[in-house]
Amino acid sequence: MTDRAPWITYRPELKVLDCTIRDGGLMNNHQFDNDVVKAVYETCVEAGLDMMEIGYKMSRKQADPKKFGPFKFSDEESIRKIVGDNKTSLRLAVMADAGKCDYETDILPKEQSVIDVVRVATYVNQIPMAVDMIHDAHEKGYEVWCNIMAISIVQEPDLQQALEVLATTPASVVVVVDSFGALYREQVDYLVKLYQSALKGTGKEVGIHAHNNQQLAFANTIEAIILGCNRVDATMMGLGRGAGNCNMELLIGFLRNPKFRIRPIYKLLQDHMLKLREKMEWGPVVPYNISGLLNQHPRAAMAVRASTGPDKDDFVSFYDKCVSEV
Amino acid sequence: MTDRAPWITYRPELKVLDCTIRDGGLMNNHQFDNDVVKAVYETCVEAGLDMMEIGYKMSRKQADPKKFGPFKFSDEESIRKIVGDNKTSLRLAVMADAGKCDYETDILPKEQSVIDVVRVATYVNQIPMAVDMIHDAHEKGYEVWCNIMAISIVQEPDLQQALEVLATTPASVVVVVDSFGALYREQVDYLVKLYQSALKGTGKEVGIHAHNNQQLAFANTIEAIILGCNRVDATMMGLGRGAGNCNMELLIGFLRNPKFRIRPIYKLLQDHMLKLREKMEWGPVVPYNISGLLNQHPRAAMAVRASTGPDKDDFVSFYDKCVSEV
Repeated sequence: MTDRAPWITYRPELKVLDCTIRDGGLMNNHQFDNDVVKAVYETCVEAGLDMMEIGYKMSRKQADPKKFGPFKFSDEESIRKIVGDNKTSLRLAVMADAGKCDYETDILPKEQSVIDVVRVATYVNQIPMAVDMIHDAHEKGYEVWCNIMAISIVQEPDLQQALEVLATTPASVVVVVDSFGALYREQVDYLVKLYQSALKGTGKEVGIHAHNNQQLAFANTIEAIILGCNRVDATMMGLGRGAGNCNMELLIGFLRNPKFRIRPIYKLLQDHMLKLREKMEWGPVVPYNISGLLNQHPRAAMAVRASTGPDKDDFVSFYDKCVSEV
Repeated sequence: MTDRAPWITYRPELKVLDCTIRDGGLMNNHQFDNDVVKAVYETCVEAGLDMMEIGYKMSRKQADPKKFGPFKFSDEESIRKIVGDNKTSLRLAVMADAGKCDYETDILPKEQSVIDVVRVATYVNQIPMAVDMIHDAHEKGYEVWCNIMAISIVQEPDLQQALEVLATTPASVVVVVDSFGALYREQVDYLVKLYQSALKGTGKEVGIHAHNNQQLAFANTIEAIILGCNRVDATMMGLGRGAGNCNMELLIGFLRNPKFRIRPIYKLLQDHMLKLREKMEWGPVVPYNISGLLNQHPRAAMAVRASTGPDKDDFVSFYDKCVSEV
């Protein structure tokens, strides 16, 4: 094959994961109507996506089920209300946060579950617990991924050590996660290569999960793909915490694998996502630009955007406050 | 100097051009209040930007001055109302479109003008006229740049030929212009290198002017910068035709030259740009995603977004229509 315009070819091994409901639920306590969750599920199937992450496996001791919708917990019953026995080619994932999941009891043996993949999310200081969770889920029969969060504020020796440890686990994928939407292209390059190097020879794939604080989620995802990432996260209309994620409709437009279909995604956007947007705000508005630029957690930006007062659009005061806290 | 994290250093020779009023005027027939134009000008000065493109030099025979605001024509008098004698370090530019500018008469000798730079915008088939305009402006005493538009639909031999011709002119900068917001990172790479190669040895700089149809304007600008582009266009809050341009507030956050200051830009956004946004829409909404993806002119997307009926958000019908026209 010629190498003249590789961007019009594709890698069959590249797989796309939709995490609209899981990540988007951070904006509305997972209070989605079931018809929205079902519409996202059916769109993923029609669009030929590889996987849908439907929600969290959150401990009921740590989150009040009266305050949160069902996909904060993703019980088997709640999932089956949406997907039945999921007789489709779409695989299903849930996210289990280290320290926030009663995984010994709440993650069922695979033969009792319609879930295919458990994604263990961990901060770098929780790696030993994450490793235990990875083994637990793997022994129960699941494919397991690991997302190390907030790596833009992690020191490199810590990250290197975490990757060395994860390399010895049965996790099949380790995901580069830009939790704060702080990374520029060259930093994505650096980290993807670091992950690839640490996982070399293990057969594990590197994934990418980008946030859109600086309008770079899609671009950084492209960059990771160019470098060989074969597991790619995106969400419908970019719905996700704060600034949101890589937009699925952009990603599928970029990918060339003919199994992907973009038209059902546009249909979902106009039928469901626009209505969600009327109810809640996400996307790269200025306060998220600022938190991304300063490599800070988006919680302060989320608070200012939730305000009904004039501070909502007082970008300068927000910037001054963030800078004084650095 | 170490090469370990070059992204935290900077190139002093990199210069930033604001084209908020010039490109944004394509959304409102340049009907800006003078206080907005003045606020953008003062912000450019305070932010330490290098250049502001204030408007077009449009022929009055081709555009009715009753229909358009003053910066469609950018008379000396209109400009001086904003900038006086411009006793600042900010240089001023105007854009002159090939075939739409009475340049022989409307571009005054430099000694009668507060303008520093004339940017000649041309389609590839108008290169002979553009060359005449470049010589005219240069002989009148201006620095001259050349923007070749819509290059994502130009055949490579034509583009090569155009660059060969421009290499012999007194233009000091040739700008890579992604008019349709269609280019992905690898294509930006390809084109920037093509321009650099064609202009090698002439001392000319390569510039970048990106559109945001696929949320890639900022990322593609970063890419061009990494490759050595030293003339960079951006606009306040991304204001520009259709999906808009590279956001100045993001770009200045990314650049490391201490002469740039981001705080005045946030101030402009909250004091002026938010109000403009209430009156007109720009940014990467779905119809612009589609026109960018399909490498089409944004005029159809602009028409559908200007609609007050249900077709405004009927993304599927718009997509079907655009695909049928390919």
